Amino acid sequence: MTAISVLGTGSWGTALANVLLDNGHDVLMWGRNHTVAESLTQDKQNPEYLPDIILSDRMTATTSIESAVNHADILILAVPTKGIREICQQIDQVTTGPKTIIHVSKGLEPKTFKRISEIIEEVMAADHLQGVGVLSGPSHAEEVARRQPTTVAIASHDKEVRQLGQDLFMCDYFRVYTNDDLIGVEIGGALKNIIALAAGLSDGLGYGDNAKAALMTRGLAEITRLGVKMGADPMTYLGMAGLGDLIVTCTSVHSRNWRCGEMLGKGLSLQQALDSMGMVVEGVRTTQAAYEMSRAYEVEMPITHALYDVLFNGGPVEQNVRVLMNRQKTNE
Amino acid sequence: MTAISVLGTGSWGTALANVLLDNGHDVLMWGRNHTVAESLTQDKQNPEYLPDIILSDRMTATTSIESAVNHADILILAVPTKGIREICQQIDQVTTGPKTIIHVSKGLEPKTFKRISEIIEEVMAADHLQGVGVLSGPSHAEEVARRQPTTVAIASHDKEVRQLGQDLFMCDYFRVYTNDDLIGVEIGGALKNIIALAAGLSDGLGYGDNAKAALMTRGLAEITRLGVKMGADPMTYLGMAGLGDLIVTCTSVHSRNWRCGEMLGKGLSLQQALDSMGMVVEGVRTTQAAYEMSRAYEVEMPITHALYDVLFNGGPVEQNVRVLMNRQKTNE
Repeated sequence: MTAISVLGTGSWGTALANVLLDNGHDVLMWGRNHTVAESLTQDKQNPEYLPDIILSDRMTATTSIESAVNHADILILAVPTKGIREICQQIDQVTTGPKTIIHVSKGLEPKTFKRISEIIEEVMAADHLQGVGVLSGPSHAEEVARRQPTTVAIASHDKEVRQLGQDLFMCDYFRVYTNDDLIGVEIGGALKNIIALAAGLSDGLGYGDNAKAALMTRGLAEITRLGVKMGADPMTYLGMAGLGDLIVTCTSVHSRNWRCGEMLGKGLSLQQALDSMGMVVEGVRTTQAAYEMSRAYEVEMPITHALYDVLFNGGPVEQNVRVLMNRQKTNE
Repeated sequence: MTAISVLGTGSWGTALANVLLDNGHDVLMWGRNHTVAESLTQDKQNPEYLPDIILSDRMTATTSIESAVNHADILILAVPTKGIREICQQIDQVTTGPKTIIHVSKGLEPKTFKRISEIIEEVMAADHLQGVGVLSGPSHAEEVARRQPTTVAIASHDKEVRQLGQDLFMCDYFRVYTNDDLIGVEIGGALKNIIALAAGLSDGLGYGDNAKAALMTRGLAEITRLGVKMGADPMTYLGMAGLGDLIVTCTSVHSRNWRCGEMLGKGLSLQQALDSMGMVVEGVRTTQAAYEMSRAYEVEMPITHALYDVLFNGGPVEQNVRVLMNRQKTNE
């Protein structure tokens, strides 16, 4: 039994805490929302994020960051990308010893385009950080909380962190592969949201399965090209954090990015789509980041560029699809 | 304007003939069924295979194999895998000159496990065959016949055949990439049906998107391993005839292989599932072929082996999934 704290009481943090509890560990969750923390501790439920699911009877949550951080040497960071910097500052302030941090976020920091592990390493004092890793892959939280078969990857530059993550999380419904390509896994998780937006857009336009499969295939090729330029291993994109996550995000109606794209395909403006969703759509910011990075690194990314034109220049959607279809004849 | 004959008046042959007619070519279709040939020629429709779709007004079909074969130097072969050997014998008998043959079938010959192009080369007299190629990729026929955006690959060992295929078919709704890996494309088209069966089985069991995405990801990895042993380029499996086709086949309820797998997941026996479909399910035979090849080539294919156990030994479905999930801890 290992002590672990899970920071973030959204659907994914809750589902992962539940896996760790199923594996017999001593888990404490932390979240800002008192109502959610109370539901978790008293009712073993998270009605806001995982309605109708009964969690482990050992589930407990606190709203005290100090208690959570000092409950364990291992922290699972399950907060949105935009909250990473702030939570790391808080951890750094209250911690009484070094921590191993495994994050589960999928994005890049706006403006700086930094990966999550880069932010963690930048913010935390060196003697407060034992190791950093990321858990990523095709994983709707609801399905994991319902104990349906799920397979993910744990990546870190540090072999001990990879082994630790695999040992803590793996069970008969949650299979964990190790991967030493931290950069590739973090970038894959972020960039796949661009293709999910494009796939939603294709569906919104009324195009069929052929068009979407082609977009996903060529999309994976272009995010692999960018990832490789940034130091990733191309094989990572054939794995759970690349192809696996791409498939789930592009083919599920539960995906926020897909849903936003679908609205654009149906003729809504970006602002209208975002307003009607009322939530962060990571893929929009990631498209901008990837567009700028593809220019900086001189990587050909035709789908990203077409999507950027639609999102930020009000470019005509159908014409952009035609441009993609009629690019110069080429080989695969 | 090039003369081309399309042999086979099923949905895919009809849709491809329609693309070629849209591109201005002189196309003659051939099929055994008089009613279908008459509908195509007189009504510009194929009510049996593509209901409610109006085809090009230049569509014509014959039931005379001799007329069709000698109408053109280029033949598109769109017949089921099991009919390939016989149709090649007929072509070889009636032809008055050498032909370039592009086939569009996705299977391996039962028992011999030969690829389609191998059968064509074996049956046709050398001076009757100018070149061989395959057209493959994510392509529901209905969508192509409705002129929805579609992207495929043309593969051949012969550069002229690749170029010819791309030039003939490519238009604003049908994008064609060339690929020199004939072996990889043919094997990819066949083996992806195994994973479609497994994906249907997972859906039939009530598992979720996470499980299916993981199966598809690990499934692509294992068919790539076998393909590479048989001489394929691994990059082919990242392209239209690998990943692209896999996505369409595993995520569409129109896929026969997926549907058969779903019935097995719901508890039907293989015989019951096949009886209720009343059609050939290529993936069943391909699973047997891949199982035997994986043993002959010593390639690890856990999904294929689990599926083989379910299909041919009456192995318990859920237990096989648990075995897959609980294999030894490993890296990607």
